[in-house]
Amino acid sequence: MAAGETGRVATRRAYTGRVISLDVDTVRFPDGSTGELEMVRHPGASAIVPFLSDPAGEDPQILLLRQYRYAALDVLYEVPAGRLDAGEAPLACAHRELLEETGCRAGRMEHLFTMYTTPGFTDEKIHLFLAAELTMGEAHREADEFIELERVPLSRALEMIERGAIQDAKTALAILYAAGFRAGR
Amino acid sequence: MAAGETGRVATRRAYTGRVISLDVDTVRFPDGSTGELEMVRHPGASAIVPFLSDPAGEDPQILLLRQYRYAALDVLYEVPAGRLDAGEAPLACAHRELLEETGCRAGRMEHLFTMYTTPGFTDEKIHLFLAAELTMGEAHREADEFIELERVPLSRALEMIERGAIQDAKTALAILYAAGFRAGR
Repeated sequence: MAAGETGRVATRRAYTGRVISLDVDTVRFPDGSTGELEMVRHPGASAIVPFLSDPAGEDPQILLLRQYRYAALDVLYEVPAGRLDAGEAPLACAHRELLEETGCRAGRMEHLFTMYTTPGFTDEKIHLFLAAELTMGEAHREADEFIELERVPLSRALEMIERGAIQDAKTALAILYAAGFRAGR
Repeated sequence: MAAGETGRVATRRAYTGRVISLDVDTVRFPDGSTGELEMVRHPGASAIVPFLSDPAGEDPQILLLRQYRYAALDVLYEVPAGRLDAGEAPLACAHRELLEETGCRAGRMEHLFTMYTTPGFTDEKIHLFLAAELTMGEAHREADEFIELERVPLSRALEMIERGAIQDAKTALAILYAAGFRAGR
């Protein structure tokens, strides 16, 4: 880092985990001062809105997961999603996770948006995709994934976002993007 | 925890930090099996969309922050937001963070939505609010907050979400909620 440039001055690995790691970094800020920040390091992820019928058609059906989440001590509605493997491109990850979690292969996979989940304490980025032209196969889930699939009309998914029944940020954003926003006041 | 119930079986604090802590928990899953999960513990936060004119009026102005984020090594557009103090209610936090980051007091603060930021590895929830009837005062920021304020018409903020210029998930969702979604295909 050049003198005066913002960014990392020093780093200390506080924890190395299976999914995430935690660094305590000394950071130079825009005013030239330095401070310590806790930063959860994450490889990034892809998330996919799977369309079971033509996305441009009348109220298309999408596939949602009902997934047990320990963080929420509850079952959350989510779109299929998962971490990037080392060196894996977001598009390849989207195809792989869709297949693993739902058993579907997508003839069409369209990038919608890339978001920081919570940039105050993690570098995690999630790449959101729309999947269409699906063919069904067999899901292969990881041991700690507890998932039920549910077919939902897009209009109902949007209504679930409006009333807060979809609580997962990536899922709400991915559906809103895939729908081109919608609703009116 | 009752026998057979899902949830925490055991917990080990792997790191205690200033903002976040990290637990490695043994968890019972819905099928009765157990496994280890890394869980970043966060007190939760409130985020606010500040309206500088009537939210129901013609293309109202909102206030966005341009904030240096080490996680992104970049400046991100965000809405004002911050962590709950111990025992603090989300509404009180929203008023406090709005005042600290923008210097504004809100005559009206309306809850929009509560979201899990990334429930695969953290229990962080963000409570989103719409603030209106603002009176301007003086901001009091924390030492490591580098923020510029920018007035933006709501229509332009929505267009920034569409083209990916707003990359922060809570900010995109909060604005979409405050706008009642919008846009068309």
